[in-house]
Amino acid sequence: MTTEHTMAHHTGPMAGYEARNFLWQVSEDGKVATITLNRPDRKNPLTFESYAELRDLFRKLVYANDIKMVVITGAGGNFCSGGDVHEIIGPLTKMTMPQLLEFTRMTGDLVKAMRACPQPIIAAVDGVCAGAGAVMALASDMRLATEQTKTAFLFTRVGLAGADMGSCAILPRIIGQGRASELLYTGRSMSAQEGYNWGFYNSLHPSESVLAEAQKLAQQLANGPTFAHAMTKKALHQEWAMGVDEAIEAEAQAQAICMQTKDFHRAYHAFVAKQKPVFEGD
Amino acid sequence: MTTEHTMAHHTGPMAGYEARNFLWQVSEDGKVATITLNRPDRKNPLTFESYAELRDLFRKLVYANDIKMVVITGAGGNFCSGGDVHEIIGPLTKMTMPQLLEFTRMTGDLVKAMRACPQPIIAAVDGVCAGAGAVMALASDMRLATEQTKTAFLFTRVGLAGADMGSCAILPRIIGQGRASELLYTGRSMSAQEGYNWGFYNSLHPSESVLAEAQKLAQQLANGPTFAHAMTKKALHQEWAMGVDEAIEAEAQAQAICMQTKDFHRAYHAFVAKQKPVFEGD
Amino acid sequence: MTTEHTMAHHTGPMAGYEARNFLWQVSEDGKVATITLNRPDRKNPLTFESYAELRDLFRKLVYANDIKMVVITGAGGNFCSGGDVHEIIGPLTKMTMPQLLEFTRMTGDLVKAMRACPQPIIAAVDGVCAGAGAVMALASDMRLATEQTKTAFLFTRVGLAGADMGSCAILPRIIGQGRASELLYTGRSMSAQEGYNWGFYNSLHPSESVLAEAQKLAQQLANGPTFAHAMTKKALHQEWAMGVDEAIEAEAQAQAICMQTKDFHRAYHAFVAKQKPVFEGD
Repeated sequence: MTTEHTMAHHTGPMAGYEARNFLWQVSEDGKVATITLNRPDRKNPLTFESYAELRDLFRKLVYANDIKMVVITGAGGNFCSGGDVHEIIGPLTKMTMPQLLEFTRMTGDLVKAMRACPQPIIAAVDGVCAGAGAVMALASDMRLATEQTKTAFLFTRVGLAGADMGSCAILPRIIGQGRASELLYTGRSMSAQEGYNWGFYNSLHPSESVLAEAQKLAQQLANGPTFAHAMTKKALHQEWAMGVDEAIEAEAQAQAICMQTKDFHRAYHAFVAKQKPVFEGD
Repeated sequence: MTTEHTMAHHTGPMAGYEARNFLWQVSEDGKVATITLNRPDRKNPLTFESYAELRDLFRKLVYANDIKMVVITGAGGNFCSGGDVHEIIGPLTKMTMPQLLEFTRMTGDLVKAMRACPQPIIAAVDGVCAGAGAVMALASDMRLATEQTKTAFLFTRVGLAGADMGSCAILPRIIGQGRASELLYTGRSMSAQEGYNWGFYNSLHPSESVLAEAQKLAQQLANGPTFAHAMTKKALHQEWAMGVDEAIEAEAQAQAICMQTKDFHRAYHAFVAKQKPVFEGD
Repeated sequence: MTTEHTMAHHTGPMAGYEARNFLWQVSEDGKVATITLNRPDRKNPLTFESYAELRDLFRKLVYANDIKMVVITGAGGNFCSGGDVHEIIGPLTKMTMPQLLEFTRMTGDLVKAMRACPQPIIAAVDGVCAGAGAVMALASDMRLATEQTKTAFLFTRVGLAGADMGSCAILPRIIGQGRASELLYTGRSMSAQEGYNWGFYNSLHPSESVLAEAQKLAQQLANGPTFAHAMTKKALHQEWAMGVDEAIEAEAQAQAICMQTKDFHRAYHAFVAKQKPVFEGD
């Protein structure tokens, strides 16, 4: 699909997106975008504005045909410290119920948008990964981390429930219901090694290379059949609470669609010619 | 909420509950209740009466505002050997279908009641943990055990299905579908180390301290924002088979409610004052 | 139930089934069937014919009262290389959408049939286990493997989605959502050790004994209460996307049915007589 026929009539290529509340960088080939939370002096907290901009960005990515993969990371050796105490928690203590619900729905909408965009998201996590920051890692499709990473769903420590932005639904699917319960009730940090052993992190890397490794994996996938990857993401997310037979039918339809892509034909012809296929995402 | 306004018009404070089929002890501050299955000579089997009393007790806890956490354990170095062969299995072989269904629904109602009460439940498990005993551990929110613990979903050994009291639904969510299948088809014991590696147990402790550790964790949580903990428990349980987007909306509402609790405000003000928050559960 | 009263009016005992596209062998006592994919020179690929025959075979097993367990394996040190490139992928590149959907539904129907038959299925996996072969292992109830086993959901390598035959629904339930995402997006091989650590494999064995171990486990279960095993399988599969309370009610009914089987009574009487029960599956 060319940009002339894009469904994103209100945006141009996302490669040119100008971010206000974080860094937005796109790889040389234009396919891999990296979001860097960039308030390193405060360990990259979220604010009302950054929540809203992230939500809108992921919504725009639904129709962004140029970007194929997203990496999300934090500057200065930490991923994200979550909602800022002064800029978010303070104001929340003064809000009415409709205002509070507007806020919790906005944060939830960020997770929904991360899950709804077709680009698989890889989190490159180091140091502090807490609160809403931990949920952003959770809402990503894959997670790379370092030995120093400490991830805490610490809502309970500020008097709140572990039921935040979908954590009680998503975390148990990744690390199991018993471990998730402990983390969500106690708010304790999960160590990097625990996170790796439990399947929260896909791999651990040194601090100096975790972002590069995430980008390398993203680039590798961006060079693959990206239309099919987007279908994989859709299936992984929508089949969550589906009966298995219904999921099998959904995948029969999804895969039949993928079998009419050029990438599938490219792969077959490359195989027959004993060559490596060159995928183009269509 | 004071006892004058409690919805539990038929009971007083649960701290004074007089148990007939097990021990019921409440911590000095009245917040942590410990249930001890107490027929150590028989490894604490369940009987028709103890099933029914446990079910009714957990149902009463729904409106018990004094109790914030529940610990469940067994006396004499074993957790629970399950339904007593002579007192339960024998009579079952003589029952009509309506009577059998009445029994299986009662045991299932125990699990439903454990999941529906607002107090998180911590199982302190040692030695034998079998049959319905294993399911009671399974239905708890967290599980602490010892190296000697042997947990067996041994229904198959008495000619029955692994489909007992929700085991086929709950066990796979905790340890994964493949491991759960093996345990439920074969009825074999899961060792303590397997249980820990697989996420069934949250931690392993010496026999002499496992109960104390469970009570310590319970007390720590009882001193936390218990209204929010109850919301976490509700979310962890009800989002089990929900779509993720629906779960995110459910959590937006749940967390907005928690943001209007005094505990949330207490946490914020303590943070600003560089103090440790004192939560009161309201 | 005698064969006179079987619901499978169109087939005799399955012990006499004559397979065309693989080997079908039945144990001496007639209870354990072993399916051997048998094109070892090509690492046992699937063809249109073998897919269809496998689907029909598992459908027939629904009413096959003689067979109590199924083992599935591959000849010559490999499990299955998936859909044959020349016999399947080539033709697919020339099909219309209705034809493609007919194909993806047929492969999905194989998984549905494996899950719907009452016999628990044990996969004995060695060497290459790829594509649709990996999904057949995935769709089995338990999996035994060797240190040499390499399992790859490699659809992405041929330009397709990981959404194949239910993989995006089933794999996350066995190894967790994060690990499953990585395997399905990248198509990389899961090593035997990873598969064991993550709960994909129930145990690892030497190549020369993995099939014998699978058959031994199958025979052990075939000697157990097979009516109850079938109920366990039904519960494990149908409760996948059920609310827990609904699953508990489903199990109350399932177990009440099992309590009226002769096997339950046999177990009780054997226990009282301090003997080992002899189960007969009724």
